[in-house]
Amino acid sequence: MSDDALLDELLGEARSEIDSIDDEILKLLERRAKVVARVGEVKKAHNLPVFHPAREEDLIYNRRKEADKLSLSPEMVEDIFRTVMRASRIKQTKTMAQKSVRPGAKILVVGGAGSMGRLIYGWFSAAGYDARILETDDWGNVGEKAEGVDLAILSVPIHITGEVAERLSPHLSPDAILADITSTKSEPMERMLRAHPGPVLGLHPMFGPTTDSLDKQIVVVSPGRNPEGCKWVVEQLAAWGAVTVAATAKEHDEVMDVVQGLRHFATFAFGQFLSKRKISLQRTLEFSSPIYRLELDMVGRLFAQDPTLYADIIFSTPERLELLRGYVESLEENIRMLKEGDIDTFMEEFAKVAEWFGPFSDQAIRESSYLIEKMIERF
Amino acid sequence: MSDDALLDELLGEARSEIDSIDDEILKLLERRAKVVARVGEVKKAHNLPVFHPAREEDLIYNRRKEADKLSLSPEMVEDIFRTVMRASRIKQTKTMAQKSVRPGAKILVVGGAGSMGRLIYGWFSAAGYDARILETDDWGNVGEKAEGVDLAILSVPIHITGEVAERLSPHLSPDAILADITSTKSEPMERMLRAHPGPVLGLHPMFGPTTDSLDKQIVVVSPGRNPEGCKWVVEQLAAWGAVTVAATAKEHDEVMDVVQGLRHFATFAFGQFLSKRKISLQRTLEFSSPIYRLELDMVGRLFAQDPTLYADIIFSTPERLELLRGYVESLEENIRMLKEGDIDTFMEEFAKVAEWFGPFSDQAIRESSYLIEKMIERF
Repeated sequence: MSDDALLDELLGEARSEIDSIDDEILKLLERRAKVVARVGEVKKAHNLPVFHPAREEDLIYNRRKEADKLSLSPEMVEDIFRTVMRASRIKQTKTMAQKSVRPGAKILVVGGAGSMGRLIYGWFSAAGYDARILETDDWGNVGEKAEGVDLAILSVPIHITGEVAERLSPHLSPDAILADITSTKSEPMERMLRAHPGPVLGLHPMFGPTTDSLDKQIVVVSPGRNPEGCKWVVEQLAAWGAVTVAATAKEHDEVMDVVQGLRHFATFAFGQFLSKRKISLQRTLEFSSPIYRLELDMVGRLFAQDPTLYADIIFSTPERLELLRGYVESLEENIRMLKEGDIDTFMEEFAKVAEWFGPFSDQAIRESSYLIEKMIERF
Repeated sequence: MSDDALLDELLGEARSEIDSIDDEILKLLERRAKVVARVGEVKKAHNLPVFHPAREEDLIYNRRKEADKLSLSPEMVEDIFRTVMRASRIKQTKTMAQKSVRPGAKILVVGGAGSMGRLIYGWFSAAGYDARILETDDWGNVGEKAEGVDLAILSVPIHITGEVAERLSPHLSPDAILADITSTKSEPMERMLRAHPGPVLGLHPMFGPTTDSLDKQIVVVSPGRNPEGCKWVVEQLAAWGAVTVAATAKEHDEVMDVVQGLRHFATFAFGQFLSKRKISLQRTLEFSSPIYRLELDMVGRLFAQDPTLYADIIFSTPERLELLRGYVESLEENIRMLKEGDIDTFMEEFAKVAEWFGPFSDQAIRESSYLIEKMIERF
């Protein structure tokens, strides 16, 4: 046999062996999924939560230990089982999602034909609620649609949320919960509170309409009026796998000035500058570190989405615009430093900021290193 | 038996079943690793590359198909096998790394006690090269250390690279390759070319000193003089798993103005502003979307690293400073838009930039969605 033929045979044999091992692994994963489905049914029947952090950390700890014994990379093994557990949680969450915390309740999703509206309507419907949609072209039927409703959720653009609340309220029972999902809370909630005498709840789901599982997704919950009466809505979100975080409207908006306003503006401005200078994205990517690729992905991602959403976010309040002005001014101050090649100031500033970031830096290194690793692995 | 006791038993049984399935999976992974190790030995003996993209894509395609048949999530299965393959590649690459492309060659790493220097020294040593280190306090022995060296790599700060090249060259044989690893190439390479009459090679590894595998890591290679004579160095990098990208020093520097200068400056300025305003990082994270968390991780990551490295990068050339000034000016132009609440201009600008980003946006959505998913899964 020639050298090449022998080599082909050696590699071919190894490859079929790998294929058959992988087949066995897949069959085990199938068996595992079935056991997990059984657990899901038991949890559903007994109202137990899907996510059991202690059990999951325990499991990971044991698998890592086992990996070490078998000379496998503990990181690889942890990765694999986190992936498996996340998929399990999503599946279990879907089973649980069919359970309604307040069976028979009537839900009205105003703006339910929009992308977020459809998502919300879908969740409530799947959980067996009596859910219905009210859209602009349907407003003539508002009386009929709003009758006997237990929860009305406004899923409309932020700048018309107040107005829609005012038009809807006269048709709601005083016991009905009025909620919204806007990304700033102070003004819409004030207007909801004025318009509606009953329970009011501000919600801000921190994810977009393409999210297909609420597993570990954050929803900020702002109490408006009668939190006790609104409790079941929050419990339903948790039952769907979401993590609910309570905050007053004011506190929420201050945090969002940074998380959404400042961050999205900075990302917008970066992409805008690249386009003005006609930088070749392709060439920068060919040469790039995974870090740059990850950052460019975040910029490109923004420009693939709905501009009105970002306009709403960036231009939302005078406080937010003030923050953005401050940001640009702060950048201007660096111009002198750059012009004069003032490396000393740079080093001083860097040290100050580093100290301020403090322990978060460790977390940042750990988390970003993991994601960069995933970037290299996948793309 | 009480309800609770029954429940405990049901869940307990399911958990032991899951544990034993996982044990079997781990044993299969161990068996798989052994087969892969055998393949690695064969590849090493026959000088075959570790990374075989077509075979890997084929494998993923088949596993996804199988997953579908077994009602497993194809995404989960793809994730698992990409993780397994990456670990396999890293292991095989380590086996291959022991193979030297030019056996017996002598390597001098100048600045070899620094973090990147140690990394480079480690690779060459592991591959069986006759590698040695020259440090500042050791300069008295330069004649002895540089004697008969086939490759001298300068791993010193960018602003002294030229000077070190000049001091070292008289001690090098005219056949020796002189290389550097600085993050700008034009000026250091010019000085290396003037100082040394033999082969000159510019290298820019696009990763930091914590990288523990060269698998799929990018190294930019700039030809200086006698590329034919430098070929074995590039081949050695590829043998270690790196992806080498060729570019002239000028082209490299232009791309790095964006990839490193602009991006790191923007990240610096963002972190600096957060610290000036004393924004509560913890609070922003509690409320945050995974996207913000990922972005904040990238900022925190920068401030956990060496400030001199970033000063070197940001203040590197007049062209780069010009680009950064242009960036700040471009941000200033947005101030008027913000002040006047000029949403129309924002929408127009957004549309223009989105069009310019064009097809990259799809890639950005796909890649960033995957990483955001990983962020949710893990943290």
